[in-house]
Amino acid sequence: RAERVAHFEQDVWSIFTPLALECQAVNLGQGFMNFPPPDFVVEAAREAVTRNDCNQYSHPKGRPRLRNALAKSYSPLFNRTLDPETEVVVTAGANEGIFSIFAGYLDQGSEVILMEPFFDQYISNITMNGGVPVYCPIRPAGDATKDMPASEWKIDIKELESKITPRSKIIVLNTPHNPIGKVFSREELEEIGALATKHNLLIISDEVYDRLYFDPMKHQRIATLDGLWERTITVGSGGKTFGTTGWRIGWLIGPKALVEPALAAHTRIVFCVNSPLQEAVAVGFEQADERGFFGSQIKAYEHKREKLLAVFRELGLPCTIPEGSYFILVNTDKIQVPKDYQFPELLWKRPKDFRTCYWLTKEIGVCAIPPTEFYSKPNQVLAENFARFAFCKTDETLDAAAERLLKLK
Amino acid sequence: RAERVAHFEQDVWSIFTPLALECQAVNLGQGFMNFPPPDFVVEAAREAVTRNDCNQYSHPKGRPRLRNALAKSYSPLFNRTLDPETEVVVTAGANEGIFSIFAGYLDQGSEVILMEPFFDQYISNITMNGGVPVYCPIRPAGDATKDMPASEWKIDIKELESKITPRSKIIVLNTPHNPIGKVFSREELEEIGALATKHNLLIISDEVYDRLYFDPMKHQRIATLDGLWERTITVGSGGKTFGTTGWRIGWLIGPKALVEPALAAHTRIVFCVNSPLQEAVAVGFEQADERGFFGSQIKAYEHKREKLLAVFRELGLPCTIPEGSYFILVNTDKIQVPKDYQFPELLWKRPKDFRTCYWLTKEIGVCAIPPTEFYSKPNQVLAENFARFAFCKTDETLDAAAERLLKLK
Ligand SMILES: CSCCC(=O)C(=O)O
Ligand SMILES: CSCCC(=O)C(=O)O
Repeated sequence: RAERVAHFEQDVWSIFTPLALECQAVNLGQGFMNFPPPDFVVEAAREAVTRNDCNQYSHPKGRPRLRNALAKSYSPLFNRTLDPETEVVVTAGANEGIFSIFAGYLDQGSEVILMEPFFDQYISNITMNGGVPVYCPIRPAGDATKDMPASEWKIDIKELESKITPRSKIIVLNTPHNPIGKVFSREELEEIGALATKHNLLIISDEVYDRLYFDPMKHQRIATLDGLWERTITVGSGGKTFGTTGWRIGWLIGPKALVEPALAAHTRIVFCVNSPLQEAVAVGFEQADERGFFGSQIKAYEHKREKLLAVFRELGLPCTIPEGSYFILVNTDKIQVPKDYQFPELLWKRPKDFRTCYWLTKEIGVCAIPPTEFYSKPNQVLAENFARFAFCKTDETLDAAAERLLKLK
Repeated sequence: RAERVAHFEQDVWSIFTPLALECQAVNLGQGFMNFPPPDFVVEAAREAVTRNDCNQYSHPKGRPRLRNALAKSYSPLFNRTLDPETEVVVTAGANEGIFSIFAGYLDQGSEVILMEPFFDQYISNITMNGGVPVYCPIRPAGDATKDMPASEWKIDIKELESKITPRSKIIVLNTPHNPIGKVFSREELEEIGALATKHNLLIISDEVYDRLYFDPMKHQRIATLDGLWERTITVGSGGKTFGTTGWRIGWLIGPKALVEPALAAHTRIVFCVNSPLQEAVAVGFEQADERGFFGSQIKAYEHKREKLLAVFRELGLPCTIPEGSYFILVNTDKIQVPKDYQFPELLWKRPKDFRTCYWLTKEIGVCAIPPTEFYSKPNQVLAENFARFAFCKTDETLDAAAERLLKLK
């Protein structure tokens, strides 16, 4: 067993997703949809597998049709004409895309600045490539024991700058943010961008929830700010965009010179991405606008967000009100887990929120994710009193969750 | 740009596949099928995307249905009851599976013994994970200027042992072999296995062509030899098995303790494999036997092999007669490439076979792959006089290739 995989703990997904199944809990844990992708995208997948070229290797960069569709859909959002030949790379999900950026850029000891909470896979993706994660917390500026908009979670830009060293190579931004649901404002992006420029850092902008933001917030792209296109790789996700988390289609967008090292790594790691589902995602982008898909998807999610927020309000559990993504961070202070409850051994080695979420799954029948998974050890105390609930679920599922959660009253 | 990707040269696939397209050459280069996968597998894919659970994340290990189908199909071939829970891992193609094994096992300076020629991606997969490839040639024991069965390409077991050092961790076996088409005999596997045991090496047995072997050879599995299950991870490929190279479904089979480090790496690199095409490959295995699929596929390939061999015989170009896989190594000594032919700059930096294959693609209209890509620099001289032709193509394509190749007469 190599040093690079020697210290992995069991990840939160492989604890809670099987647990939810086993307990027949309503699963508001892992962020996947339990409703079907749009018909026109499914139909495109059905059609693609009947065309033989769609069943064979793609170019490592991705199928031309998908790269063209991405360039066309994203060019107006980036305020520039994206070149589908050199500025778009299709990856085996956003995860493999991010792994490949780290593989293409990090040497032994290179440092990567992360704002915490962070998506947990970043850490292994960095350390497996010899890098060292360096953390800066995003703190609730408001009173976390009351409801507050996600925008009140803030970075202290001085503190962020203090984390930068001569070994810093990359800063990772995630907006809309998982698990906070924060959509970074233009001012915040300008501050972060100025730091990156001053210290010559590559920016990875993880924007997998870029089509999921709620009125009155609008998703802002750091790559569109003055001078920042040149140092930013933006990461996107077909799974989040079209409700197909199991298709494993992601992409990187950035200048040729920046995406090239990631493409070089990606080509060796997976060679290419599955062809038929690339074709279907291409059709998704080709037809999304005429069908008004992104707008109506946002409306549907907005409704789901309200549905779930209403439950926590009724329970008097303070929430962070998400401005994007499909997660709600809930303050669980008032939930009474019986003191003598018998937890499995392994949960005593984890922070308190693992036990709260376990108990919720097992006894209340609703699965949530413990957010300390998204924190470095020293800062896990900041998150022990929260649980993350996903609302990318059918209304029926949200209603069933509500019914069970209201037993907490 | 990280050191680990700094020295990559352009890979052979991204040179020759676009070139073949551009020249409208008959493409016998990259090993993909230009005929459709079996109907029942395509139908299963069409059905899978209509079931929502098939559109969402799978377990990182793979979908239970596919792991069960693999365990059921492979148990008799491994002479043991495979446990689908712990002894089978689904990967994003065999390539990502092999990358993940190296990521799970290699530390800085760990050595990996390769027999050359070797599948080119092995090298970057090893070096990206800090490993050092060590080479031992497979040499034609017969007269390579005459037709000969692939079995006459042999390893000198003493030479192989001489490559092993205290830093050696893994030995990679590939049978049926790409590009030689050799199916290793039981005696050869016993010798290699004995070395691995003596020196405590992990064996990666890359058996992606395990369903493609020709009378009278039978594919033998090193993991079935005495005491070798415990040290072998066997790699398989849905793309090769069902003619779906673009679906990116591969798998690892081995004892729990051996596959676990690879699974740990795989989970972080891609998280999971695309779900709907896993489901379709599961159906492929479930129905293959009752449909007599593997047998009739072998018959079809045998016919294609004869078709292509006949062309080279008519041309008087000596061939290695493959016992498995879908490649023919052809001795190109007698092909007269005009001395004053204008090659693009980049081809002068490559061995002679790159120019021969370029000229064949451009002027004869048939694309082949230069096999020096599969050799370490010092041993490329062993392969400069060969070209690799793939016969995983429709009969019409093989006929069109024949017509063009016969212009060489
Ligand atoms: C690696 S699976 C996690 C899915 C997801 O994006 C989330 O729930 O945060
Ligand atoms: C990495 S694509 C190569 C396909 C293949 O297996 C071959 O042609 O050898």
